[in-house]
Amino acid sequence: MPRIPALTVWPLEGIPEITAGTDLVEVIAQAAGSDLADGDILVVTSKIVSKAEDRFVVADDREDAITGETVRVVASRTSPTGHTTRIVENRLGMVSAAAGVDASNTPEGTVLLLPVDPDASARSIAAGLRERLGVEVGVIVSDTLGRAWREGQTDQAIGAGGIHVFEDLRGGTDAEGRPLIVTLPCVADELAGATDLVKGKSARLPVAVVRGRADLVGALDLPGARSIVRPLERDMFRLGADEAYADGFAAGAASARPSA
Amino acid sequence: MPRIPALTVWPLEGIPEITAGTDLVEVIAQAAGSDLADGDILVVTSKIVSKAEDRFVVADDREDAITGETVRVVASRTSPTGHTTRIVENRLGMVSAAAGVDASNTPEGTVLLLPVDPDASARSIAAGLRERLGVEVGVIVSDTLGRAWREGQTDQAIGAGGIHVFEDLRGGTDAEGRPLIVTLPCVADELAGATDLVKGKSARLPVAVVRGRADLVGALDLPGARSIVRPLERDMFRLGADEAYADGFAAGAASARPSA
Repeated sequence: MPRIPALTVWPLEGIPEITAGTDLVEVIAQAAGSDLADGDILVVTSKIVSKAEDRFVVADDREDAITGETVRVVASRTSPTGHTTRIVENRLGMVSAAAGVDASNTPEGTVLLLPVDPDASARSIAAGLRERLGVEVGVIVSDTLGRAWREGQTDQAIGAGGIHVFEDLRGGTDAEGRPLIVTLPCVADELAGATDLVKGKSARLPVAVVRGRADLVGALDLPGARSIVRPLERDMFRLGADEAYADGFAAGAASARPSA
Repeated sequence: MPRIPALTVWPLEGIPEITAGTDLVEVIAQAAGSDLADGDILVVTSKIVSKAEDRFVVADDREDAITGETVRVVASRTSPTGHTTRIVENRLGMVSAAAGVDASNTPEGTVLLLPVDPDASARSIAAGLRERLGVEVGVIVSDTLGRAWREGQTDQAIGAGGIHVFEDLRGGTDAEGRPLIVTLPCVADELAGATDLVKGKSARLPVAVVRGRADLVGALDLPGARSIVRPLERDMFRLGADEAYADGFAAGAASARPSA
């Protein structure tokens, strides 16, 4: 056994089925009992936040719900079988497949949208747990997201309250004393991913706790997960390659045509 | 305290400075002592694998070394201050900034390239530790990588030996019994990120252990981290938006010109 486990991660057992109006602070406090301590970080699956906030919408067609949540289509591709994958930017600025519209584990004929403001949700849960249990915890709201260039998904942070989402090493130096100018670890995403390893997708374990990085827990008004989203003007992949090519082709053709 | 911590993560202390030819199996076995058990997963920072494999190259200019490691430029952008960021595909198929060329913590005038074959390195370390210590461990070689659409970096898997890099839930069902058709958690990336949380960038803690997911550890000939790289034909972001637009523009202009 390790002499000092630097980090421990465990799921909260006994979280009941969440429905519209469930008090998540109450439910988490009940499940955690007296297990929580100052500096613990809770990662809450966005699905239960959405359910508690009654983000169900009636939708015969999931595609219509995705369209409704889409601010901008980043890329889309239709497979030989006719299935279209859409990568879109949603109102939170997040780029993901399907705009976070979730049709699994929802009542027939309904889909679940992402929380209206996941940072506000995370802050509210953190504030409630701090007040109720008297422990200074941080809260991350997580979602399962795909990535460019890499297959599969990882759980990432879409909301954060009372926690530093980045570990800012930019002002530090490496072991040789040279400045670490470009390293900005997104610890919130790493924490979300770590808890996915204990949650299990098919089990009902929507909340997990990470202990061992109390240094990341702080004031409730720290920047949220919205600050992880890269601004459009800095984004080299703001449009899919096929889509950007098509836009360029049209512009190029128009520019080369003899003017009337 | 949690009754049963589902996952524990700790760094190995006492790893000495790694130089060309260092036997990593020996060094890790010494540092781990009798702490390792069947099912443990070791995440080894690619930097020490590169050092042990003598991947130092003399380079007055880091940019030249990046060019040498680049198979294909995916996107590039020059800032107002004149600094050019290049996102490139390297010979491993990985898309990243700077092709994994590392100039921090290296002797003056040298840079460090990625291991020649990180999957082979991971398998070799796993095989060595299994033989030497008599415990069935899995090994991940990690690198710090940026992401499209999101600021900051996370540690991700670029090599894997004796471990399932994906948790394949595609054949499973959700709690309502509906098939989980699209979920393919990239557990190798989540494991790499979890260990970054205990390694610290400026400290010399290049190896960490994860205990609690023994189910992911398996045969040494399991697919490596190369299988995480999305094939080009499935990649909607194989080129930066500006680059794809420029290609399209040129093609559009050529198509619209009156033929000679």
